Amino acid sequence: MNNISISDRFKGNVPQLDMPPRILLGPGPANVDPRILAAMSVPPVGHLDPTFLKVMDEIQDLLRYTWQTENEMTIAVAGTGTAAMEATIANSVEPGDKVLIGVKGYFGNRLVDMAGRYGAEVSTITKTWGEAFTLEEIKTAIETHQPKILALVHAETSTGVRQPLEGVAELCQQHGCLLLVDTVTSMGGVPLHIDAWGIDLAYSCSQKGLGSPPGASPFTMSPRAVDKLKNRPKSVPNWYLDMALLAKYWGSERVYHHTAPINMNYALREALRLVAEEGLQERWQRHQQNAELFWDGLAELNLECHVAKEIRLPTLTTVKIPEGVDGKAISTKLLNEYNIEIAGGLGELGGKVWRVGLMGYNSRPENVILLLSAFKKVLGK
Amino acid sequence: MNNISISDRFKGNVPQLDMPPRILLGPGPANVDPRILAAMSVPPVGHLDPTFLKVMDEIQDLLRYTWQTENEMTIAVAGTGTAAMEATIANSVEPGDKVLIGVKGYFGNRLVDMAGRYGAEVSTITKTWGEAFTLEEIKTAIETHQPKILALVHAETSTGVRQPLEGVAELCQQHGCLLLVDTVTSMGGVPLHIDAWGIDLAYSCSQKGLGSPPGASPFTMSPRAVDKLKNRPKSVPNWYLDMALLAKYWGSERVYHHTAPINMNYALREALRLVAEEGLQERWQRHQQNAELFWDGLAELNLECHVAKEIRLPTLTTVKIPEGVDGKAISTKLLNEYNIEIAGGLGELGGKVWRVGLMGYNSRPENVILLLSAFKKVLGK
Repeated sequence: MNNISISDRFKGNVPQLDMPPRILLGPGPANVDPRILAAMSVPPVGHLDPTFLKVMDEIQDLLRYTWQTENEMTIAVAGTGTAAMEATIANSVEPGDKVLIGVKGYFGNRLVDMAGRYGAEVSTITKTWGEAFTLEEIKTAIETHQPKILALVHAETSTGVRQPLEGVAELCQQHGCLLLVDTVTSMGGVPLHIDAWGIDLAYSCSQKGLGSPPGASPFTMSPRAVDKLKNRPKSVPNWYLDMALLAKYWGSERVYHHTAPINMNYALREALRLVAEEGLQERWQRHQQNAELFWDGLAELNLECHVAKEIRLPTLTTVKIPEGVDGKAISTKLLNEYNIEIAGGLGELGGKVWRVGLMGYNSRPENVILLLSAFKKVLGK
Repeated sequence: MNNISISDRFKGNVPQLDMPPRILLGPGPANVDPRILAAMSVPPVGHLDPTFLKVMDEIQDLLRYTWQTENEMTIAVAGTGTAAMEATIANSVEPGDKVLIGVKGYFGNRLVDMAGRYGAEVSTITKTWGEAFTLEEIKTAIETHQPKILALVHAETSTGVRQPLEGVAELCQQHGCLLLVDTVTSMGGVPLHIDAWGIDLAYSCSQKGLGSPPGASPFTMSPRAVDKLKNRPKSVPNWYLDMALLAKYWGSERVYHHTAPINMNYALREALRLVAEEGLQERWQRHQQNAELFWDGLAELNLECHVAKEIRLPTLTTVKIPEGVDGKAISTKLLNEYNIEIAGGLGELGGKVWRVGLMGYNSRPENVILLLSAFKKVLGK
């Protein structure tokens, strides 16, 4: 067929996939409900098949329910949560736009990096990792910087802080500014009302509170944000995530844009069905109850939480590493001896905290008592 | 917990997923080997779990084998093929760079759109949809435009044309230009030698010749392309696809970048294992043989191929819609009566051709005779 010989140098001899039975109690992914794995492995149809278009519609409605929004432009981005994050920036930031970002952890910094790449004139307000901004601080910053976009992280996965958002939208609207919110570690696990709270752009992932594998990620934008997109003089400098094009695939026109990750959408649909079956209020309560069970157990082990209870996320807890304890050695032990994954701190909190997630399918009392028991063992308490 | 009531407006009553048993003989996705679906539904581990890092290494090696490259920077992008396409542009094009693009179908045009968004000064050479460029035409265009990057589509999914690439790299190297190639519909199904052909940047998808579901997509760049990336004065204007950051996650540093689509990587690994088990040469031959079987059968039905045999892709055949036949009605009939998906033409070829794919797991004689038999029925022959 051709005269170039085939090299077998990298052919290797890769064995059958054989993964350990991890219990995923870190910052995500979490374990996946067997119903979701079963839905994911249904043989794919084409991305323009009428039956798949119906799946897309169902996903849009279930995302709207889970986020409590009526936004038409509510879709699953064809990538993991970071792609959906970039989609909010790419579709809202125009070169030269003033963007004010609240930085109180790793993901705030990531927003700064991303917004800069899209030509934003970035200002920041910062807060110690483990605290939240007050409404007064946000008000002063908006008045000082007069941004076109204010970006806040609702649930900071690096610190375990819940940023209260009540009242922020009113300030934004008074100053003609869009409100962009990271809901990666809150959606499906923590009270969150996109419309009632006046959020204009939000993103999340499939794998934490929703409990689906990573790969298809919630994105929503309000009519105000859509207006800004429609009025920009130049195309969004990102083809894959351009909502002007994606709206024609997810909307009624059904114009081909990219080959959707079919099976990831099957999985996400099933995860969202599980949210609807359980009910949002009930799901939020379950996350809160299991988190409190965990916090009580930590106290009994004389382990402290890094974040004050009023702003502590139920989905993700940062636990202070006691003085003299090698945090990394403990988490490695949990993994190797008990197949339990937790994570260390990121950035400023590196070496100072463990990050424990009780999210989606994993927010269950049996996981709480197992982890507490394992902590007791590996800490020799 | 809070005093905002929950709206059930979009909660709906979405039933259990129940998809039809499609036989996917369009331009992709193709049906998936049950071994791949089984691997994909293995419960996920974390994206920094030592066992997952090993999976990543295995994927890199198997991609190198399948592409016949030694490029260190060979990874699976966390999105569908279009994301990998954008990754090649984002990581090679600097604002003001002259980029010469060969346009002979829909995906050439997409490259033009993308490169423009990244600030390229784009020139094009064009060819009728259904033909390929000669080496002489490419030579003249390079001499005329003196580009920094030449982008060609090896396998044009919209036309079914195979673009011969032998000799192109020598021209590029003489003129200090990088060679960027779309291998979406060739990888795993059509002879392709990244290193021997001197290709500097290439992308593909998981769902055609490789036969995995869409969602994790092959990307490779040569040391020359890596040099250009390292020497650019500003960061890549795309965070999610920035290879400078991704190299630290896929390379030995293992710095967290994004949550990888774990299960898509399981699937891709299994698909690549199947390629290695079969052997590249054998796999290419299988695709060629089944395509020829199909072409012979078309001739018996007095149906003509749109592309000359010398440059016709074995993976994707464009079949001329006979005069007086409603192409869309026929493909709808195939779908509704026999669960067979084929596609119509895109762009210039809309209404003029059907697009038939025999790719990966679906390149089998039983699919060929089934489709021919179904064509005979619905065309009333």
